[in-house]
Amino acid sequence: MTETAYQQLERRFKRLSALEEARAVLGWDMSAMMPPGGAEARAGQIAELKAVCHGILTAPEIGDLIAAAETDDLAGWQPANLREMRRLWTTATALSEDLVVALSKAESTCEAIWRGARADADFACVVPAMTELLNLVREAAAAKSEKLSLSLYDALLNSYEPGGRAEDIDIVFDDLEGFLPDFLGQVLDLQAGRPAPVLPEGPFLEETQKALGIKFMQALGFDFDHGRLDISLHPFCGGTPDDVRITTRYDETDFTSSLMGVLHETGHALYERGLPKPWRGQPVGEAMGMSIHESQSLLVEMQVCRSTGFLEYAAPIMRDAFKGTGSAWEPDNLYRLYTQVKPDFIRVDADEVTYPAHVILRYRLERALIEGDMQVPDIPAAWNEGMQRLLGLTPPTDREGCLQDLHWYDGAWGYFPTYTLGAMTAAQLFGAAKKAVPEIEPGIAKGDFKPLLRWLKTNVHGKGSLLETKDLLIEATGKPLDPAVFRNHLKKRYLET
Amino acid sequence: MTETAYQQLERRFKRLSALEEARAVLGWDMSAMMPPGGAEARAGQIAELKAVCHGILTAPEIGDLIAAAETDDLAGWQPANLREMRRLWTTATALSEDLVVALSKAESTCEAIWRGARADADFACVVPAMTELLNLVREAAAAKSEKLSLSLYDALLNSYEPGGRAEDIDIVFDDLEGFLPDFLGQVLDLQAGRPAPVLPEGPFLEETQKALGIKFMQALGFDFDHGRLDISLHPFCGGTPDDVRITTRYDETDFTSSLMGVLHETGHALYERGLPKPWRGQPVGEAMGMSIHESQSLLVEMQVCRSTGFLEYAAPIMRDAFKGTGSAWEPDNLYRLYTQVKPDFIRVDADEVTYPAHVILRYRLERALIEGDMQVPDIPAAWNEGMQRLLGLTPPTDREGCLQDLHWYDGAWGYFPTYTLGAMTAAQLFGAAKKAVPEIEPGIAKGDFKPLLRWLKTNVHGKGSLLETKDLLIEATGKPLDPAVFRNHLKKRYLET
Repeated sequence: MTETAYQQLERRFKRLSALEEARAVLGWDMSAMMPPGGAEARAGQIAELKAVCHGILTAPEIGDLIAAAETDDLAGWQPANLREMRRLWTTATALSEDLVVALSKAESTCEAIWRGARADADFACVVPAMTELLNLVREAAAAKSEKLSLSLYDALLNSYEPGGRAEDIDIVFDDLEGFLPDFLGQVLDLQAGRPAPVLPEGPFLEETQKALGIKFMQALGFDFDHGRLDISLHPFCGGTPDDVRITTRYDETDFTSSLMGVLHETGHALYERGLPKPWRGQPVGEAMGMSIHESQSLLVEMQVCRSTGFLEYAAPIMRDAFKGTGSAWEPDNLYRLYTQVKPDFIRVDADEVTYPAHVILRYRLERALIEGDMQVPDIPAAWNEGMQRLLGLTPPTDREGCLQDLHWYDGAWGYFPTYTLGAMTAAQLFGAAKKAVPEIEPGIAKGDFKPLLRWLKTNVHGKGSLLETKDLLIEATGKPLDPAVFRNHLKKRYLET
Repeated sequence: MTETAYQQLERRFKRLSALEEARAVLGWDMSAMMPPGGAEARAGQIAELKAVCHGILTAPEIGDLIAAAETDDLAGWQPANLREMRRLWTTATALSEDLVVALSKAESTCEAIWRGARADADFACVVPAMTELLNLVREAAAAKSEKLSLSLYDALLNSYEPGGRAEDIDIVFDDLEGFLPDFLGQVLDLQAGRPAPVLPEGPFLEETQKALGIKFMQALGFDFDHGRLDISLHPFCGGTPDDVRITTRYDETDFTSSLMGVLHETGHALYERGLPKPWRGQPVGEAMGMSIHESQSLLVEMQVCRSTGFLEYAAPIMRDAFKGTGSAWEPDNLYRLYTQVKPDFIRVDADEVTYPAHVILRYRLERALIEGDMQVPDIPAAWNEGMQRLLGLTPPTDREGCLQDLHWYDGAWGYFPTYTLGAMTAAQLFGAAKKAVPEIEPGIAKGDFKPLLRWLKTNVHGKGSLLETKDLLIEATGKPLDPAVFRNHLKKRYLET
């Protein structure tokens, strides 16, 4: 029996997926287990795996097989799978090998210089390397743009958010940008008039924190037969759908931040774990873009776990775990702690209200840079002007300003908007879920997350990459991304609670 | 600049090595970290990696490249590297793809049936699957035998012990087999006349055991910047030369067995770590066959760590770690404990004196089976006859007899002799080292292992696969494997100490 072109593609993509999974495990190990002396060899292992994967994806016959498969008799999820195969292949073949190598070198160089520049708060010293990298990124954007018939920025965005368009982002970000400054003022006034939240007093033993994290992970539906919780410097969700591995780090003087981080990563993990088993190993079975992924972590963290309902249920469990006493352990205090708003310089420490300002600023700047409307040396001034306008702050140095994030210096252009798209998507999905399933909210208040997880599995996790982000959102919530939903969420939580 | 044939081969084998390393890390993870639900996906990842590696090694042009490289201008370690490349390629291409697939299936089937057969002590039920597997193993032996111009058994042995020959093994095993039964009787008589060793009383907390193991590992030269110690059901040494990972398991009622296991695996680890850095990623840079590998673990465990000198140094450290008191912690008692001889049925629990009997029995039987002089149904009777002759014991059931080891049921034929070749090689290497460097023995007695490690690095670890086992031994000790050295070691330790 001869294989159809489509079947041949499935077989090749299955191998590709297994090798990508292997790479994911090596990546997790690198961050969570590997001794420092293993770094060089590990880089070699990962580079060779990448090269083998690239070779499989760009083999000369793939283009013909994809073309031939278009006329195969496909059913169910297969056409979507073929669409994803084509997208991966087109993206992988868009860049010449010379450009890929040049980019990779420029990224390593720029990242290394950035580390020094950030430490010394010396933006000038990274300007030449960043200019060279940006030129190559723009060259790559142009090559992808031509292949994908997308604008320069959209061509980059497409790697993180397939189907994403700057024109759609502009609509929702313009809306938010108009709303946030005034709203932030109102929230700050209101919070200033209330008692300041009190941080429960430690010490909080690492192993107790871990046990508590595991308890909540299990309640949320994380299956330890198919996953782990470990420690790494930068928390993340890694591994594979059948073996999802999240990490955190512990501060024995403050458990609240690590715990919320664990819940955030649990949101990512539930998504990976909920990807449709029958499509495993095929592109259609993988997670949709980064904004949906981020929506799942933020739905759990922001929508669920920073809510009054969740904290009513969770506060006594936290208190009992650490044998705490006093009013700091009251749900009301923990809620004020977990929803405290405070404009500050650093994105990764930002609260739910000010976070979008950080993202919008980066999105505006990276678009201007990609589109040639701004040059690298102009970044610090534009950054500081934006921070002043959006949050009323000016970073004391570029270390707390334009040097704080790795992304640009490592070649990840077009990634930033997905954070806030994820936050907005989370609000919209959670709103629709609560409306569709009345048991969800009372469930959360008593620690029963099954109704929510069921809805998410059906409407998000189980869809894999069947639908593009916009269509998934329309199917799940009845409309495309609507900034009013996120605005209303913020107003309700920060002005009316 | 065009690459020479040899340079092309180096590039391909570098990729192969990186992918094999990736597989080693996945293998370690599978045993030490992976949650049970990850097993199926992991099997897929490893299978695809294997297939990719096989594809690289058997690509149609490799044979021509190897032939062409023979006329390239090679220097230093390059000819040995090319020799190893040829060996790997010849072995990989000796079997038809059909035979490889049939073997793999027969191994899985037979192994699964064996698990049940062992549990039920029912050898008969595994006979059909084992017969089928043995037929395929013999077919593979015939194919390799033709390609490598070796006898059937040597063709199998060659995968574990390159250059190994049954005729050489026969010489040393015949010698041992003649010596052991009488010797064992003398040792048992002598030990019966001495006070029985006392096991120190626990409990021994897992974390204390781990800290103690780490202390000795570091003293021996294990570098935790390039390695880890973890837990697994079956202890092993895995990972890669720059990131060596050993495992153990802890029994909180008896620390002695886990600790000695850690020291054994440390011997393997020091070998991997000591492989020559400039040859990394090439076949010549890898560890020589299994008997040298086992010699390095047994040199550390048997020659060094079960010696009176080591235990003089180690006993107070063990006692202090567990805050022990009493005569059970005296070096003399611990020495008698660690050198207690007791004939028993199970190989993996055997002491230094009776272990070779287990191996010699298996070697004799597997040769007869491979050479067609014996059939599968004859195994239990032959096994029990051999146990009676060698150790004066008859297993109560086949569970404690011919069903105890996985090897044959999993297709690992030709592996067993390397255990005892390793023990004998360890004695010979250690003897030569002590003679060459007078500081080694007094060093051990005060916990200074640097002189020993230096000698091993120069004479064994740093050689990689430059020399075949026999030549390595001649260079390091002045002669090929000499059974008298091992005999003398046993006599000295068990009759004269």
